[in-house]
Amino acid sequence: MSTQHDAGVPFTIGVAGGTGSGKTTAAMAIVERVGSDKIAYLPHDAYYRELNNLPPDKRATVNFDHPDSLDTPLMIEHIKRLRNWEPVEIPVYDFTIDARTDRTIHVDPQPIILVEGILIFAEPELRSLLDFKIFVDTDSDIRFIRRLQRDIRERGRSVENVIEQYLRTVRPMHLEFVEPSRRYADIIIPQMGFDHPAIDMVADRVRALAMRGTFPRSSRS
Amino acid sequence: MSTQHDAGVPFTIGVAGGTGSGKTTAAMAIVERVGSDKIAYLPHDAYYRELNNLPPDKRATVNFDHPDSLDTPLMIEHIKRLRNWEPVEIPVYDFTIDARTDRTIHVDPQPIILVEGILIFAEPELRSLLDFKIFVDTDSDIRFIRRLQRDIRERGRSVENVIEQYLRTVRPMHLEFVEPSRRYADIIIPQMGFDHPAIDMVADRVRALAMRGTFPRSSRS
Repeated sequence: MSTQHDAGVPFTIGVAGGTGSGKTTAAMAIVERVGSDKIAYLPHDAYYRELNNLPPDKRATVNFDHPDSLDTPLMIEHIKRLRNWEPVEIPVYDFTIDARTDRTIHVDPQPIILVEGILIFAEPELRSLLDFKIFVDTDSDIRFIRRLQRDIRERGRSVENVIEQYLRTVRPMHLEFVEPSRRYADIIIPQMGFDHPAIDMVADRVRALAMRGTFPRSSRS
Repeated sequence: MSTQHDAGVPFTIGVAGGTGSGKTTAAMAIVERVGSDKIAYLPHDAYYRELNNLPPDKRATVNFDHPDSLDTPLMIEHIKRLRNWEPVEIPVYDFTIDARTDRTIHVDPQPIILVEGILIFAEPELRSLLDFKIFVDTDSDIRFIRRLQRDIRERGRSVENVIEQYLRTVRPMHLEFVEPSRRYADIIIPQMGFDHPAIDMVADRVRALAMRGTFPRSSRS
Protein backbone atom coordinates (compact mmCIF):
# COMPACT_ATOMS: atom_id res chain seq x y z
CA MET A 1 0.00 0.00 0.00
CA SER A 2 2.72 2.45 0.96
CA THR A 3 4.28 2.52 -2.50
CA GLN A 4 0.93 3.34 -4.00
CA HIS A 5 0.34 5.92 -1.33
CA ASP A 6 3.60 7.59 -2.28
CA ALA A 7 2.68 7.37 -5.95
CA GLY A 8 -0.29 9.69 -5.76
CA VAL A 9 -4.02 9.72 -5.55
CA PRO A 10 -6.24 7.15 -7.27
CA PHE A 11 -7.93 8.48 -10.39
CA THR A 12 -11.70 8.73 -9.96
CA ILE A 13 -14.03 8.21 -12.89
CA GLY A 14 -17.76 8.87 -12.81
CA VAL A 15 -20.26 7.24 -15.17
CA ALA A 16 -23.74 8.80 -15.14
CA GLY A 17 -26.81 8.74 -17.36
CA GLY A 18 -30.55 8.28 -17.07
CA THR A 19 -32.35 5.05 -16.35
CA GLY A 20 -31.88 2.61 -19.22
CA SER A 21 -29.15 4.73 -20.79
CA GLY A 22 -26.60 1.95 -20.74
CA LYS A 23 -24.39 3.49 -18.06
CA THR A 24 -23.97 0.19 -16.20
CA THR A 25 -23.00 -1.45 -19.49
CA ALA A 26 -20.42 1.30 -20.00
CA ALA A 27 -19.07 0.90 -16.47
CA MET A 28 -18.88 -2.89 -16.80
CA ALA A 29 -17.14 -2.62 -20.16
CA ILE A 30 -14.50 -0.39 -18.56
CA VAL A 31 -14.04 -2.82 -15.67
CA GLU A 32 -13.76 -5.76 -18.04
CA ARG A 33 -11.24 -4.11 -20.34
CA VAL A 34 -9.10 -2.50 -17.66
CA GLY A 35 -9.26 -5.40 -15.18
CA SER A 36 -11.34 -5.63 -12.02
CA ASP A 37 -8.12 -5.96 -9.98
CA LYS A 38 -7.24 -2.34 -10.81
CA ILE A 39 -10.65 -0.79 -10.16
CA ALA A 40 -12.56 -0.01 -6.97
CA TYR A 41 -16.19 0.04 -8.09
CA LEU A 42 -18.83 2.04 -6.20
CA PRO A 43 -22.42 2.00 -7.46
CA HIS A 44 -24.53 4.83 -6.04
CA ASP A 45 -27.43 2.32 -5.88
CA ALA A 46 -25.72 0.58 -2.95
CA TYR A 47 -26.23 3.70 -0.87
CA TYR A 48 -30.04 3.88 -0.75
CA ARG A 49 -31.27 5.19 2.58
CA GLU A 50 -33.11 2.75 4.81
CA LEU A 51 -36.87 3.02 4.89
CA ASN A 52 -37.66 0.34 7.46
CA ASN A 53 -38.41 3.02 10.03
CA LEU A 54 -41.26 4.24 7.82
CA PRO A 55 -44.71 2.62 7.96
CA PRO A 56 -45.37 0.39 4.91
CA ASP A 57 -47.93 2.74 3.36
CA LYS A 58 -45.39 5.59 3.43
CA ARG A 59 -42.69 3.41 1.94
CA ALA A 60 -44.76 2.81 -1.16
CA THR A 61 -44.77 6.51 -1.98
CA VAL A 62 -41.06 7.16 -1.46
CA ASN A 63 -39.43 8.79 -4.46
CA PHE A 64 -36.39 6.58 -5.13
CA ASP A 65 -35.33 8.84 -7.95
CA HIS A 66 -34.84 11.92 -5.79
CA PRO A 67 -31.27 12.67 -4.64
CA ASP A 68 -32.43 12.67 -1.01
CA SER A 69 -33.23 8.96 -1.21
CA LEU A 70 -29.49 8.22 -1.42
CA ASP A 71 -26.91 8.38 1.36
CA THR A 72 -24.50 10.43 -0.71
CA PRO A 73 -22.50 11.69 2.31
CA LEU A 74 -21.51 8.08 3.06
CA MET A 75 -20.47 7.50 -0.54
CA ILE A 76 -18.42 10.70 -0.46
CA GLU A 77 -16.71 9.49 2.70
CA HIS A 78 -15.94 6.18 0.99
CA ILE A 79 -14.46 7.87 -2.06
CA LYS A 80 -12.28 10.03 0.16
CA ARG A 81 -11.03 6.98 2.04
CA LEU A 82 -10.27 5.11 -1.19
CA ARG A 83 -8.43 8.17 -2.47
CA ASN A 84 -6.39 7.93 0.71
CA TRP A 85 -5.63 4.25 -0.09
CA GLU A 86 -7.89 2.96 2.72
CA PRO A 87 -10.37 0.09 2.19
CA VAL A 88 -14.12 0.60 2.65
CA GLU A 89 -17.16 -1.52 3.37
CA ILE A 90 -20.01 -0.64 1.04
CA PRO A 91 -23.58 -1.37 2.14
CA VAL A 92 -25.64 -4.17 0.66
CA TYR A 93 -29.22 -2.99 0.30
CA ASP A 94 -32.18 -5.34 0.36
CA PHE A 95 -34.99 -3.80 -1.68
CA THR A 96 -37.48 -6.39 -0.44
CA ILE A 97 -37.27 -5.02 3.11
CA ASP A 98 -36.13 -1.48 2.21
CA ALA A 99 -33.15 -1.72 4.53
CA ARG A 100 -29.45 -2.42 4.51
CA THR A 101 -28.50 -6.02 5.24
CA ASP A 102 -25.92 -6.96 7.85
CA ARG A 103 -23.54 -7.74 5.05
CA THR A 104 -21.19 -5.29 3.38
CA ILE A 105 -18.91 -5.58 0.39
CA HIS A 106 -15.25 -5.04 1.15
CA VAL A 107 -13.62 -2.80 -1.44
CA ASP A 108 -9.85 -2.41 -1.45
CA PRO A 109 -8.24 0.79 -2.71
CA GLN A 110 -7.10 0.64 -6.34
CA PRO A 111 -5.44 3.03 -8.79
CA ILE A 112 -8.85 3.61 -10.40
CA ILE A 113 -12.07 4.38 -8.53
CA LEU A 114 -15.16 3.94 -10.70
CA VAL A 115 -18.33 5.60 -9.43
CA GLU A 116 -21.61 4.89 -11.20
CA GLY A 117 -25.11 6.26 -10.80
CA ILE A 118 -27.93 8.31 -12.25
CA LEU A 119 -27.39 11.26 -9.95
CA ILE A 120 -23.65 11.39 -9.31
CA PHE A 121 -23.11 14.59 -11.33
CA ALA A 122 -26.04 16.31 -9.64
CA GLU A 123 -24.30 16.61 -6.26
CA PRO A 124 -21.64 19.34 -6.18
CA GLU A 125 -19.43 17.75 -3.52
CA LEU A 126 -19.55 14.31 -5.11
CA ARG A 127 -18.93 15.82 -8.53
CA SER A 128 -15.85 17.65 -7.29
CA LEU A 129 -14.26 14.31 -6.38
CA LEU A 130 -14.57 12.97 -9.93
CA ASP A 131 -11.49 13.46 -12.09
CA PHE A 132 -13.19 12.37 -15.30
CA LYS A 133 -16.92 12.43 -15.92
CA ILE A 134 -18.67 10.33 -18.56
CA PHE A 135 -22.38 10.80 -19.30
CA VAL A 136 -24.14 8.11 -21.30
CA ASP A 137 -26.86 9.88 -23.26
CA THR A 138 -29.58 7.80 -24.85
CA ASP A 139 -32.90 8.93 -26.29
CA SER A 140 -35.71 8.87 -23.76
CA ASP A 141 -37.94 6.46 -25.71
CA ILE A 142 -35.12 3.89 -25.90
CA ARG A 143 -34.39 4.37 -22.21
CA PHE A 144 -38.02 3.79 -21.31
CA ILE A 145 -38.21 0.67 -23.48
CA ARG A 146 -35.11 -0.80 -21.80
CA ARG A 147 -36.47 -0.02 -18.35
CA LEU A 148 -39.83 -1.56 -19.22
CA GLN A 149 -38.22 -4.75 -20.49
CA ARG A 150 -35.89 -5.00 -17.50
CA ASP A 151 -38.58 -4.39 -14.88
CA ILE A 152 -40.91 -6.94 -16.46
CA ARG A 153 -38.19 -9.55 -16.90
CA GLU A 154 -36.15 -9.12 -13.72
CA ARG A 155 -38.65 -7.70 -11.27
CA GLY A 156 -41.90 -9.27 -12.40
CA ARG A 157 -43.64 -5.91 -12.66
CA SER A 158 -46.68 -5.17 -14.80
CA VAL A 159 -46.62 -2.79 -17.77
CA GLU A 160 -49.04 -0.43 -16.04
CA ASN A 161 -47.00 -0.46 -12.85
CA VAL A 162 -43.80 0.39 -14.74
CA ILE A 163 -45.52 3.21 -16.64
CA GLU A 164 -47.05 4.61 -13.47
CA GLN A 165 -43.73 4.78 -11.62
CA TYR A 166 -41.97 6.13 -14.70
CA LEU A 167 -44.40 9.00 -15.13
CA ARG A 168 -44.79 9.73 -11.41
CA THR A 169 -41.13 9.84 -10.31
CA VAL A 170 -38.55 8.58 -12.81
CA ARG A 171 -39.29 11.03 -15.62
CA PRO A 172 -39.79 14.17 -13.47
CA MET A 173 -36.62 13.46 -11.50
CA HIS A 174 -34.73 12.83 -14.74
CA LEU A 175 -35.79 16.21 -16.10
CA GLU A 176 -35.09 17.98 -12.82
CA PHE A 177 -31.78 16.44 -11.77
CA VAL A 178 -30.25 14.04 -14.30
CA GLU A 179 -30.65 15.92 -17.58
CA PRO A 180 -29.22 19.22 -16.24
CA SER A 181 -26.23 17.40 -14.74
CA ARG A 182 -25.14 16.31 -18.22
CA ARG A 183 -23.41 19.64 -18.73
CA TYR A 184 -20.81 18.73 -16.12
CA ALA A 185 -19.63 15.76 -18.17
CA ASP A 186 -16.19 15.75 -19.73
CA ILE A 187 -17.49 13.50 -22.47
CA ILE A 188 -20.93 12.37 -23.51
CA ILE A 189 -21.38 8.97 -25.12
CA PRO A 190 -24.55 8.77 -27.20
CA GLN A 191 -26.58 5.60 -27.76
CA MET A 192 -24.45 3.27 -25.68
CA GLY A 193 -23.76 -0.26 -26.79
CA PHE A 194 -21.20 -2.65 -25.33
CA ASP A 195 -18.91 -2.49 -28.36
CA HIS A 196 -19.14 1.27 -28.64
CA PRO A 197 -15.89 2.74 -30.04
CA ALA A 198 -15.82 5.35 -27.28
CA ILE A 199 -15.46 2.57 -24.71
CA ASP A 200 -12.29 1.33 -26.37
CA MET A 201 -10.92 4.83 -26.07
CA VAL A 202 -11.97 5.31 -22.46
CA ALA A 203 -10.64 1.87 -21.54
CA ASP A 204 -7.28 2.63 -23.21
CA ARG A 205 -7.06 5.85 -21.26
CA VAL A 206 -8.05 4.28 -17.95
CA ARG A 207 -5.62 1.41 -18.45
CA ALA A 208 -2.82 3.90 -19.12
CA LEU A 209 -3.72 5.81 -15.96
CA ALA A 210 -3.89 2.63 -13.89
CA MET A 211 -0.48 1.51 -15.13
CA ARG A 212 1.09 4.91 -14.77
CA GLY A 213 0.16 4.74 -11.10
CA THR A 214 -2.46 7.42 -10.76
CA PHE A 215 -2.93 11.09 -10.36
CA PRO A 216 -0.09 13.27 -9.05
CA ARG A 217 -0.93 13.97 -5.42
CA SER A 218 -0.01 17.65 -5.66
CA SER A 219 -2.64 18.49 -8.25
CA ARG A 220 -5.52 17.37 -6.10
CA SER A 221 -4.80 17.30 -2.42
CA MET B 1 4.88 4.28 -48.40
CA SER B 2 4.66 0.61 -49.28
CA THR B 3 5.20 -0.55 -45.70
CA GLN B 4 2.38 1.63 -44.56
CA HIS B 5 0.29 0.42 -47.44
CA ASP B 6 0.83 -3.13 -46.29
CA ALA B 7 0.06 -2.10 -42.71
CA GLY B 8 -3.55 -1.20 -43.30
CA VAL B 9 -5.81 1.73 -43.87
CA PRO B 10 -5.26 5.14 -42.22
CA PHE B 11 -7.62 5.80 -39.34
CA THR B 12 -10.04 8.61 -40.12
CA ILE B 13 -11.29 10.92 -37.39
CA GLY B 14 -14.04 13.48 -37.86
CA VAL B 15 -14.46 16.55 -35.66
CA ALA B 16 -17.78 18.38 -36.08
CA GLY B 17 -19.78 20.95 -34.13
CA GLY B 18 -21.63 24.20 -34.74
CA THR B 19 -20.06 27.56 -35.47
CA GLY B 20 -18.11 28.79 -32.45
CA SER B 21 -18.30 25.38 -30.75
CA GLY B 22 -14.54 25.04 -30.43
CA LYS B 23 -14.21 22.23 -32.98
CA THR B 24 -11.18 23.82 -34.63
CA THR B 25 -9.58 24.18 -31.20
CA ALA B 26 -10.27 20.50 -30.58
CA ALA B 27 -8.83 19.50 -33.96
CA MET B 28 -5.73 21.66 -33.44
CA ALA B 29 -5.21 20.25 -29.95
CA ILE B 30 -5.27 16.74 -31.40
CA VAL B 31 -2.78 17.72 -34.14
CA GLU B 32 -0.48 19.37 -31.60
CA ARG B 33 -0.49 16.48 -29.17
CA VAL B 34 -0.26 13.69 -31.72
CA GLY B 35 2.18 15.46 -34.06
CA SER B 36 1.41 17.12 -37.38
CA ASP B 37 3.78 14.65 -39.09
CA LYS B 38 1.35 11.81 -38.34
CA ILE B 39 -1.85 13.55 -39.39
CA ALA B 40 -3.33 14.45 -42.77
CA TYR B 41 -5.66 17.37 -41.98
CA LEU B 42 -8.64 18.17 -44.19
CA PRO B 43 -10.87 21.11 -43.26
CA HIS B 44 -14.26 21.02 -45.01
CA ASP B 45 -13.99 24.83 -45.32
CA ALA B 46 -11.32 24.42 -47.97
CA TYR B 47 -13.91 22.84 -50.24
CA TYR B 48 -16.34 25.74 -50.71
CA ARG B 49 -17.79 25.80 -54.20
CA GLU B 50 -16.74 28.63 -56.46
CA LEU B 51 -19.21 31.45 -56.89
CA ASN B 52 -17.34 33.60 -59.39
CA ASN B 53 -19.67 32.46 -62.14
CA LEU B 54 -22.56 34.08 -60.25
CA PRO B 55 -23.34 37.79 -60.63
CA PRO B 56 -22.22 39.82 -57.56
CA ASP B 57 -25.77 40.48 -56.34
CA LYS B 58 -26.51 36.74 -56.31
CA ARG B 59 -23.28 35.95 -54.49
CA ALA B 60 -24.31 38.11 -51.56
CA THR B 61 -27.34 35.94 -50.94
CA VAL B 62 -25.61 32.54 -51.14
CA ASN B 63 -26.18 30.40 -48.10
CA PHE B 64 -22.68 29.35 -47.05
CA ASP B 65 -24.10 27.27 -44.26
CA HIS B 66 -26.06 24.93 -46.51
CA PRO B 67 -24.41 21.60 -47.37
CA ASP B 68 -24.77 22.37 -51.10
CA SER B 69 -22.31 25.25 -50.78
CA LEU B 70 -19.51 22.72 -50.22
CA ASP B 71 -17.84 20.45 -52.75
CA THR B 72 -18.21 17.38 -50.58
CA PRO B 73 -17.75 14.91 -53.46
CA LEU B 74 -14.21 16.28 -53.95
CA MET B 75 -13.46 15.95 -50.25
CA ILE B 76 -14.75 12.37 -50.27
CA GLU B 77 -12.47 11.62 -53.23
CA HIS B 78 -9.54 13.06 -51.30
CA ILE B 79 -10.28 11.00 -48.20
CA LYS B 80 -10.49 7.87 -50.33
CA ARG B 81 -7.13 8.64 -51.93
CA LEU B 82 -5.49 9.31 -48.56
CA ARG B 83 -6.94 6.05 -47.25
CA ASN B 84 -5.23 4.43 -50.22
CA TRP B 85 -1.92 6.08 -49.19
CA GLU B 86 -1.99 8.55 -52.12
CA PRO B 87 -1.24 12.28 -51.68
CA VAL B 88 -3.86 14.92 -52.51
CA GLU B 89 -3.92 18.61 -53.41
CA ILE B 90 -6.55 20.43 -51.39
CA PRO B 91 -8.01 23.66 -52.76
CA VAL B 92 -7.15 27.07 -51.32
CA TYR B 93 -10.27 29.19 -51.34
CA ASP B 94 -10.17 32.98 -51.54
CA PHE B 95 -13.26 34.35 -49.84
CA THR B 96 -12.60 37.87 -51.16
CA ILE B 97 -13.23 36.73 -54.75
CA ASP B 98 -15.43 33.70 -53.93
CA ALA B 99 -13.25 31.39 -55.94
CA ARG B 100 -10.46 28.89 -55.58
CA THR B 101 -6.99 30.27 -56.03
CA ASP B 102 -4.43 28.70 -58.37
CA ARG B 103 -2.65 27.37 -55.33
CA THR B 104 -3.34 24.09 -53.60
CA ILE B 105 -2.00 22.58 -50.38
CA HIS B 106 -0.18 19.31 -50.85
CA VAL B 107 -1.23 16.78 -48.23
CA ASP B 108 0.71 13.54 -47.91
CA PRO B 109 -0.98 10.38 -46.66
CA GLN B 110 -0.51 9.72 -42.95
CA PRO B 111 -1.64 7.04 -40.46
CA ILE B 112 -4.30 9.47 -39.20
CA ILE B 113 -6.68 11.48 -41.37
CA LEU B 114 -8.37 14.31 -39.47
CA VAL B 115 -11.48 15.77 -41.10
CA GLU B 116 -13.04 18.87 -39.61
CA GLY B 117 -16.19 20.82 -40.39
CA ILE B 118 -19.63 21.91 -39.30
CA LEU B 119 -21.44 19.59 -41.69
CA ILE B 120 -19.25 16.50 -41.98
CA PHE B 121 -21.66 14.22 -40.09
CA ALA B 122 -24.63 15.45 -42.12
CA GLU B 123 -23.52 13.74 -45.34
CA PRO B 124 -24.08 9.96 -45.29
CA GLU B 125 -21.26 9.05 -47.68
CA LEU B 126 -18.73 11.29 -45.94
CA ARG B 127 -19.88 10.04 -42.55
CA SER B 128 -19.39 6.42 -43.58
CA LEU B 129 -15.68 7.13 -44.19
CA LEU B 130 -15.14 8.34 -40.62
CA ASP B 131 -13.87 5.68 -38.21
CA PHE B 132 -14.31 7.84 -35.10
CA LYS B 133 -16.66 10.79 -34.84
CA ILE B 134 -16.28 13.58 -32.28
CA PHE B 135 -18.94 16.26 -31.90
CA VAL B 136 -18.04 19.39 -29.95
CA ASP B 137 -21.24 20.58 -28.33
CA THR B 138 -21.35 24.05 -26.88
CA ASP B 139 -24.39 26.08 -25.81
CA SER B 140 -25.79 28.26 -28.57
CA ASP B 141 -25.35 31.57 -26.71
CA ILE B 142 -21.65 30.88 -26.15
CA ARG B 143 -21.27 29.83 -29.78
CA PHE B 144 -22.88 33.05 -30.97
CA ILE B 145 -20.70 35.19 -28.70
CA ARG B 146 -17.55 33.52 -30.01
CA ARG B 147 -18.64 33.98 -33.61
CA LEU B 148 -19.51 37.63 -32.99
CA GLN B 149 -16.13 38.33 -31.42
CA ARG B 150 -14.26 36.49 -34.18
CA ASP B 151 -16.12 38.14 -37.05
CA ILE B 152 -15.62 41.61 -35.58
CA ARG B 153 -11.95 41.01 -34.78
CA GLU B 154 -10.80 39.00 -37.77
CA ARG B 155 -13.19 40.03 -40.50
CA GLY B 156 -13.97 43.62 -39.59
CA ARG B 157 -17.72 42.98 -39.66
CA SER B 158 -20.33 45.07 -37.85
CA VAL B 159 -22.44 43.72 -35.00
CA GLU B 160 -25.63 44.15 -37.05
CA ASN B 161 -24.11 42.38 -40.03
CA VAL B 162 -23.04 39.40 -37.89
CA ILE B 163 -26.48 39.17 -36.28
CA GLU B 164 -28.24 39.41 -39.64
CA GLN B 165 -26.22 36.57 -41.19
CA TYR B 166 -26.51 34.49 -38.03
CA LEU B 167 -30.29 34.72 -37.95
CA ARG B 168 -30.79 34.42 -41.72
CA THR B 169 -28.59 31.39 -42.48
CA VAL B 170 -26.27 30.21 -39.71
CA ARG B 171 -28.89 29.44 -37.10
CA PRO B 172 -31.51 27.86 -39.42
CA MET B 173 -28.88 25.66 -41.07
CA HIS B 174 -27.54 24.67 -37.66
CA LEU B 175 -30.97 23.54 -36.55
CA GLU B 176 -31.68 21.78 -39.84
CA PHE B 177 -28.37 20.03 -40.50
CA VAL B 178 -25.77 20.37 -37.74
CA GLU B 179 -27.81 19.70 -34.62
CA PRO B 180 -29.46 16.50 -35.95
CA SER B 181 -26.07 15.16 -37.10
CA ARG B 182 -24.88 15.11 -33.48
CA ARG B 183 -26.53 11.75 -32.97
CA TYR B 184 -24.02 10.10 -35.29
CA ALA B 185 -21.13 11.04 -33.01
CA ASP B 186 -19.20 8.38 -31.14
CA ILE B 187 -18.44 10.89 -28.44
CA ILE B 188 -19.70 14.35 -27.65
CA ILE B 189 -17.40 16.84 -25.94
CA PRO B 190 -19.33 19.57 -24.15
CA GLN B 191 -18.10 23.12 -23.62
CA MET B 192 -14.77 22.73 -25.39
CA GLY B 193 -11.64 24.40 -24.08
CA PHE B 194 -8.09 23.73 -25.19
CA ASP B 195 -7.12 21.96 -21.97
CA HIS B 196 -10.27 19.88 -21.88
CA PRO B 197 -9.61 16.46 -20.26
CA ALA B 198 -11.39 14.70 -23.12
CA ILE B 199 -8.75 16.00 -25.52
CA ASP B 200 -6.01 14.29 -23.53
CA MET B 201 -7.93 11.09 -23.86
CA VAL B 202 -8.63 11.46 -27.57
CA ALA B 203 -5.01 12.45 -28.21
CA ASP B 204 -3.74 9.40 -26.29
CA ARG B 205 -5.99 7.19 -28.34
CA VAL B 206 -5.04 8.78 -31.66
CA ARG B 207 -1.33 8.60 -30.79
CA ALA B 208 -1.70 4.91 -29.97
CA LEU B 209 -3.48 4.30 -33.29
CA ALA B 210 -0.87 6.26 -35.21
CA MET B 211 1.97 4.28 -33.62
CA ARG B 212 0.21 0.97 -33.95
CA GLY B 213 0.15 1.59 -37.68
CA THR B 214 -3.51 2.12 -38.34
CA PHE B 215 -6.68 0.26 -39.00
CA PRO B 216 -6.55 -3.36 -40.15
CA ARG B 217 -7.29 -3.29 -43.86
CA SER B 218 -9.63 -6.25 -43.71
CA SER B 219 -12.15 -4.59 -41.43
CA ARG B 220 -12.77 -1.70 -43.79
CA SER B 221 -11.88 -2.39 -47.39
